Amino acid sequence: MPDYINGQKATPYKGVGKFMPQGRKFAQKIASNSNFPPDGNKLANNLKDALVKAGLKDGMTISSHHHFRNGDLIMNQVFDIAKGLGIKDLRWFPSASFPCHEHLVQYLEDGTIHHIEGSMNGPLGKFASDGKMKGMAVLRSHGGRYQAVQDGEVEIDIAVIVAGTADAFGNANGVDGDSASGLLGFALADSQYAEKVIVVTDNLVPFPCIPWQIQGNNVDFTVKVEKAGIPEKIISGTTKITKSPDRLLLAEMTAQFCDAAGIIKDGFSFQTGAGGTSLAVSKYFGDIMKERNIKARFARGGSNKYLVQMLEDGMIDYILDGQTFDLEGVRSMRENPNHVWTSPFTSYNYHGKGNFAGMVDVVILGATEVDVNFNGNVCTHSDGLLLHGIGGWQNCLFSKTVILPIPLFRNRIPVVVDNVTTIVGPGELIDVIVTERGIAINPLRKDLIEATKNAGLPIKTIQELKAEAEQICGVPEKPIFTDEIIAAIKWVDGTVIDVVRKVKA
Amino acid sequence: MPDYINGQKATPYKGVGKFMPQGRKFAQKIASNSNFPPDGNKLANNLKDALVKAGLKDGMTISSHHHFRNGDLIMNQVFDIAKGLGIKDLRWFPSASFPCHEHLVQYLEDGTIHHIEGSMNGPLGKFASDGKMKGMAVLRSHGGRYQAVQDGEVEIDIAVIVAGTADAFGNANGVDGDSASGLLGFALADSQYAEKVIVVTDNLVPFPCIPWQIQGNNVDFTVKVEKAGIPEKIISGTTKITKSPDRLLLAEMTAQFCDAAGIIKDGFSFQTGAGGTSLAVSKYFGDIMKERNIKARFARGGSNKYLVQMLEDGMIDYILDGQTFDLEGVRSMRENPNHVWTSPFTSYNYHGKGNFAGMVDVVILGATEVDVNFNGNVCTHSDGLLLHGIGGWQNCLFSKTVILPIPLFRNRIPVVVDNVTTIVGPGELIDVIVTERGIAINPLRKDLIEATKNAGLPIKTIQELKAEAEQICGVPEKPIFTDEIIAAIKWVDGTVIDVVRKVKA
Repeated sequence: MPDYINGQKATPYKGVGKFMPQGRKFAQKIASNSNFPPDGNKLANNLKDALVKAGLKDGMTISSHHHFRNGDLIMNQVFDIAKGLGIKDLRWFPSASFPCHEHLVQYLEDGTIHHIEGSMNGPLGKFASDGKMKGMAVLRSHGGRYQAVQDGEVEIDIAVIVAGTADAFGNANGVDGDSASGLLGFALADSQYAEKVIVVTDNLVPFPCIPWQIQGNNVDFTVKVEKAGIPEKIISGTTKITKSPDRLLLAEMTAQFCDAAGIIKDGFSFQTGAGGTSLAVSKYFGDIMKERNIKARFARGGSNKYLVQMLEDGMIDYILDGQTFDLEGVRSMRENPNHVWTSPFTSYNYHGKGNFAGMVDVVILGATEVDVNFNGNVCTHSDGLLLHGIGGWQNCLFSKTVILPIPLFRNRIPVVVDNVTTIVGPGELIDVIVTERGIAINPLRKDLIEATKNAGLPIKTIQELKAEAEQICGVPEKPIFTDEIIAAIKWVDGTVIDVVRKVKA
Repeated sequence: MPDYINGQKATPYKGVGKFMPQGRKFAQKIASNSNFPPDGNKLANNLKDALVKAGLKDGMTISSHHHFRNGDLIMNQVFDIAKGLGIKDLRWFPSASFPCHEHLVQYLEDGTIHHIEGSMNGPLGKFASDGKMKGMAVLRSHGGRYQAVQDGEVEIDIAVIVAGTADAFGNANGVDGDSASGLLGFALADSQYAEKVIVVTDNLVPFPCIPWQIQGNNVDFTVKVEKAGIPEKIISGTTKITKSPDRLLLAEMTAQFCDAAGIIKDGFSFQTGAGGTSLAVSKYFGDIMKERNIKARFARGGSNKYLVQMLEDGMIDYILDGQTFDLEGVRSMRENPNHVWTSPFTSYNYHGKGNFAGMVDVVILGATEVDVNFNGNVCTHSDGLLLHGIGGWQNCLFSKTVILPIPLFRNRIPVVVDNVTTIVGPGELIDVIVTERGIAINPLRKDLIEATKNAGLPIKTIQELKAEAEQICGVPEKPIFTDEIIAAIKWVDGTVIDVVRKVKA
């Protein structure tokens, strides 16, 4: 474990609920209305003008959010402007980056950007994984990102918030306009705690912009651009129900398990995520609910057309949504007051007075690896490469029952292993592993073992599953790592739960 | 001016926009989910249990909000409990108190409550005015209350928030349930910054309580009571259109003036308040708007049935509402997404990055006195007694045009005077005085003077108005004050703009 991360003292992981934060939240400088235009018009001439007015300079931390996912058009421009101004050593603090940000590799190389702290999906992840980034990558969950900002671990100098609709005062939402991407919850912490906040939109409306998801009272400058983002690209490749018979089997077994365990009952709640398997689980849940004529009190998003359909069919009272994964999600959020925006603060912040995660009856998650102690990995593959962000995965582990439907092996590499390459989630929070060759229940969950023992399900021990995987695939070779730490994995409380080292070439 | 108020250093008023706040906002201690129930159920057994768990002890600051106005049922209970526990020297920090709180006079007398900081309407105001309160009263505007909490001037130990509907996690709203009082915006600062937050409701719903106006993530304990409040009593005596011919004349002249000044145009905005005269102004505005077939972009609440009717008739795009003044307001806020909740943060906080007040085209306010320098008083009468709170009055002075329709005299006491008894608002922010005997325009507003000079309106100087008043009523005797300061009047930036001294018996 490193003592310091990018020059900042690091605290090692203490165990679930064991680290007690001291001190007080980060506090912004007190602002005064007398420094803002009396008529509320905060429009800057353009993005460059806003960045210059915000005082962009060397070494600053620039934050952004990923509601446009691979359809973001603004952050490449922001760093083009920084490059043009000769700015160096910026820290980019996105809630996530995507392949559309490959353009920024050049700025990581030339020193415009010192390093990135945030999920890296695609070329930037590869760049970091290759050990080329000047600073250490820091991966945080959605809740961990809020916690880090709230607690002052990450001080944001300039936040850039891109909104489908906004007024000149800075009130903004993601549900209206040609570039509606759904909501803006990932930018909430940024709007509350950043020194300067810039709202960018292509749909400027007269005050007031209703609804406001970002409050203009937290905003310094507003910018009108031609096109804010490409909402069609919020759809990721993982938002279609799987057609793979193996995965459909996993989904069906998962639903059967939940049913046997008594989880699917009137007024229950669930979060299935957006993977192809997860969507299939939703579908099977829906089938059971229809058959029994019961409904769920709420489902957590990321929302998609399947969840929206369930809401509109009256099978769910509310969708509590953190991220819209398709345009049906955006439409529903705009039109339906029961499709509710949430944020990492409400849903996932571990340094609050509770959050929503613990109130979800069952959550269905993925993993790249699980080990015999039920520890989970979502960031690295068995080859040691850092290829994924954490998202809400760690935060969701606090739900009442956590189920991971995963194939026993992928490309003849076992998924159930002796020790995960990287510990992203501790085993005590992971309850059930569903594979095509059997279901393993965490021994800590005696209640689930008891409830499902006569249900005719293929219950096995996790060691049995591991042995089966190795019997088929052989024992995989471990990657060989150098000493160089390329990334720190933060736990939900800001401690370092693991690190990722550079793989020996 | 006092150097200290209740032991805390005081800063004297510097002028509009002249005082520059230093330092950072108040920051709460960092909480941890591990100290809260994993399933989110924060229900305490009863109000006493919650107060004890919150650590109620001598000298604490207990805050509350006034959305139930004279129908509050909880705060008397809170102090009964404190008395029963033998607690002393509490500071009560309500957003306002009402005649229903007369019960608390005994606790001011016996030392359970040391003093009150907040608007005092009724018996508590009389008690303070008589110099009987142990500490000094501190009067703040709605925005000033938010500013004081945000800036750490007032640290709240326990906030009590009473909601029409809530869930056990603490998500709460004022729009649903038998005790719906509208919204909960006055309690926003309390929920964000208090050390401990208690939500009280008589309508507990399964998680999630939608909509949430107070976020459960800020709440420590929830309490279920038999009856949370009496919503019928949110109607104050001042929410009916006046039938007095004199006041109707004032209202008509005000509307005529606005029309002549070019203020009433398509897309304009207004705030008329809830006084009988103000409501009549709304009605005249509405007549003009209908005639011209124009509509307003928004109207500010406090809302009432007249404003709701205009919204529903399509004459206003949005009501931006801080307080519902009748049950039609509550209904509209519950049903109509264009009837938008605001808070002292969005609307009035002067130590933010702007607020809504400056974006309102015209605001119609009352006053107990105005002087020849256009300074206004809303707290004391000419007899020197402290009888009213500030409400949003100071904050609204930042609107583009501020008009005070007031009688030239009341009970043969001139309202336009040489010097107001108490300066609550500086003259440079007050634009127009409309009286039954003429209209005075602040010389600073050359644009208004120019625009209305040929409109056939009875424009006079403020000195002429004052002379007329004295001609009719004589020069009134000034009250004689003792040296004892009974109350400090804060400006919107936390400085002390004036004090109120005890009147010599």
